[in-house]
Amino acid sequence: MMRMVDLIRKKRDGQALTTEEIEFLIRGYAKGEIPDYQVSAWAMAVYFNGMTDRETADLTMAMVRSGEQVDLASIRGKKVDKHSTGGVGDKTTLVVGPLVAAAGVPVAKLSGRGLGHTGGTIDKLESIAGFSTSLTREAFVRQVNEIGIAVTGQTADLTPADKQLYALRDVTATVDSIPLIASSIMSKKIAGGADAIVLDVKTGHGAFMKKEEDAIRLAKAMVSIGTQVGRETVAVISDMNQPLGFAVGNALEVKEAIDTLRGEGPADLTELSLTLGAQMVLLAEVVSTYAEARALLASKLADGSALEKFRAFIRAQHGDADVVDHPERLPQAKHRIEVSAPTDGTVSALQAEEIGLAAMKLGAGRSTKEDRIDHAVGIVLHKKIGDALQKGTPLATLHANDLSRIEDVKAQVLAAYEISEETVVAPKLVRHIVDRNGIINI
Amino acid sequence: MMRMVDLIRKKRDGQALTTEEIEFLIRGYAKGEIPDYQVSAWAMAVYFNGMTDRETADLTMAMVRSGEQVDLASIRGKKVDKHSTGGVGDKTTLVVGPLVAAAGVPVAKLSGRGLGHTGGTIDKLESIAGFSTSLTREAFVRQVNEIGIAVTGQTADLTPADKQLYALRDVTATVDSIPLIASSIMSKKIAGGADAIVLDVKTGHGAFMKKEEDAIRLAKAMVSIGTQVGRETVAVISDMNQPLGFAVGNALEVKEAIDTLRGEGPADLTELSLTLGAQMVLLAEVVSTYAEARALLASKLADGSALEKFRAFIRAQHGDADVVDHPERLPQAKHRIEVSAPTDGTVSALQAEEIGLAAMKLGAGRSTKEDRIDHAVGIVLHKKIGDALQKGTPLATLHANDLSRIEDVKAQVLAAYEISEETVVAPKLVRHIVDRNGIINI
Repeated sequence: MMRMVDLIRKKRDGQALTTEEIEFLIRGYAKGEIPDYQVSAWAMAVYFNGMTDRETADLTMAMVRSGEQVDLASIRGKKVDKHSTGGVGDKTTLVVGPLVAAAGVPVAKLSGRGLGHTGGTIDKLESIAGFSTSLTREAFVRQVNEIGIAVTGQTADLTPADKQLYALRDVTATVDSIPLIASSIMSKKIAGGADAIVLDVKTGHGAFMKKEEDAIRLAKAMVSIGTQVGRETVAVISDMNQPLGFAVGNALEVKEAIDTLRGEGPADLTELSLTLGAQMVLLAEVVSTYAEARALLASKLADGSALEKFRAFIRAQHGDADVVDHPERLPQAKHRIEVSAPTDGTVSALQAEEIGLAAMKLGAGRSTKEDRIDHAVGIVLHKKIGDALQKGTPLATLHANDLSRIEDVKAQVLAAYEISEETVVAPKLVRHIVDRNGIINI
Repeated sequence: MMRMVDLIRKKRDGQALTTEEIEFLIRGYAKGEIPDYQVSAWAMAVYFNGMTDRETADLTMAMVRSGEQVDLASIRGKKVDKHSTGGVGDKTTLVVGPLVAAAGVPVAKLSGRGLGHTGGTIDKLESIAGFSTSLTREAFVRQVNEIGIAVTGQTADLTPADKQLYALRDVTATVDSIPLIASSIMSKKIAGGADAIVLDVKTGHGAFMKKEEDAIRLAKAMVSIGTQVGRETVAVISDMNQPLGFAVGNALEVKEAIDTLRGEGPADLTELSLTLGAQMVLLAEVVSTYAEARALLASKLADGSALEKFRAFIRAQHGDADVVDHPERLPQAKHRIEVSAPTDGTVSALQAEEIGLAAMKLGAGRSTKEDRIDHAVGIVLHKKIGDALQKGTPLATLHANDLSRIEDVKAQVLAAYEISEETVVAPKLVRHIVDRNGIINI
């Protein structure tokens, strides 16, 4: 008879569990037959001894099998999902979705709300008046088949074992384990019905993976899972030492996404969207080379069809599509407060996490599930790393409704900026691509 | 505010917890405020990263404070306790207790029953008709002051946090951690009121610590705890590659102890008893050199006063003291079955654990708390490592009441013997002494 204590000992002693043992563990845990205290001891042993690629893939699939699995077979074409490990100002889904849909990749996205500095994709879209994010399964499938893109809130009970394990890891200091992080992310994508997956793995001060080597290890672990379970996966390692783009806050990010789809967005957001989008186009087998994929997407931005797709998408989900041409129709904050440079110099650092926390204090995000998001508020940056400035130059504009903590927020934004007398070069945005053949330095 | 998850992370990252943090952990766990799943994750982190000597001492004292502490102040003299990490045929307490009591060391022993191949000291003493092992605190103290020795079953609620932690470690593969083992043992001795402690740390196939280096590490950890908390501690590392003495089983061991107190016991049991006893005499400050201590104890064996003390001890606890001169008054098994050598040669190995398990099958021990012990049954070995034999020479005699599994037991005892054609030297019995100044190789 299999006993959990023996499996813990095996992992503690550096051995790999078999496929059957991992299935026993996850199934028993999900059923409540294996207690938390054994699973947390196992997780800590994994923290120290890691897991083989095979074990990690087995864990992923065991978590997938613990709940519902979305069947997207009735959607034509190869469904490629995108996932970001999370960063400040990361609105790429809003750009990449319509962009690749315009290029013929079906985008069938289940999205969550989650906790964070700003809302998730669902929250951002809800900045648009009337936008509905709860589609029936039938409406969702029909919309993807008709216009190529749909986004809905997650209603299915996907990967309950992952939720249970994550909650346990959170209170037992076992979150920071590459195989556990990789299997958690991949299980959700696979249960969501993706045929192939493009991952945006952030690295830097503002990312969960502070060190680039850790981001690469995580990317490799996830690509390995995808390869083993027949879901081709490509990971892009991108910089999160400073926020992506300029806008941080729900409606503000929607506006920036619209600008980007019009071809007038920030260079970094545009570049990352094209990079991620091109990988999706490739995985969807719309074209066969990266150069063709980039060219195709660039043409979709240039000819307005990406923006047109966004408009159709908003309309299909009952949102006010006029925001595309009239972004002032998005929720506006009552107050705009400027933060100015205290001295001459060049921006040498811009702590993404501090900017995120400041946006959260304005009401842009949630720290508990019960918190309500204020869609209008947030921060628009004017200067980023490498930008020269003089004393008094506007660094950022705070969009606020509640002024009670505004001095605190101003101070935090100011403190996020490091100003140097030397010339500074902005950090490289796209660092590496990891695919089944290994790492490509670009 | 202190949070357990931060303490787990700290230990996970290789840092030492403060005294306050360890107190918080143990107190919170004992109160049920810190859940098992956090404590098991911490224990696994300790398994990998260890604990400093200071942390280990803090953990010990936090567990001592979790329950009652026995106050032996009303007993005259320095109370020196002895503890063995456990082995097969280990009846040294039955010998050493009366022996050092005869030399003037007060022996005030709280003893448990526990699980194992044979019973604990309490069970062994209960082989003697009428022997009472439940003394009131007053009777216990009075008896030690009057005749120098008393042994009673443990009634006080000593170190409940240790019991709770041990039960958790047992099911989470976190038993095998030197600092956790050391603090568990030492907390019980300290809560039991010992002023000083002599430890018998067994090493070899039949011991918990298979490797000598691990036994030394454990010994050092326990001596360090004792030194830090003002309970001088000395550890003797002794061999457990074969059973100690010849007898394995409760009444059989009492008989062997009596033989040894008469000066006619097995050489190994006599030697270990003198070694442990001499350390106790030294710690009790009865004499000032090891040579004097050995000589004193040898004289107590030679002049019959050690045996006389055992007699007085049995009488004081209402037992049948005539067993000392008439061991046939001890419970006798109905059947004696001989196991003979299958071939000529020399005993090259004698697996202590197999002999212990065989004795348990005869009914000498407990595998669950509910099991009843048969005091009469057990095994008497005739040959040990290094002994020459011819085909048919008796190796061991089984003392059995129930013959239903006897073939199984015979086979197991036979399998425990390894017979070689080469000459074999018996393993050295007493390997090292560890005291506050370090390790003494002897």
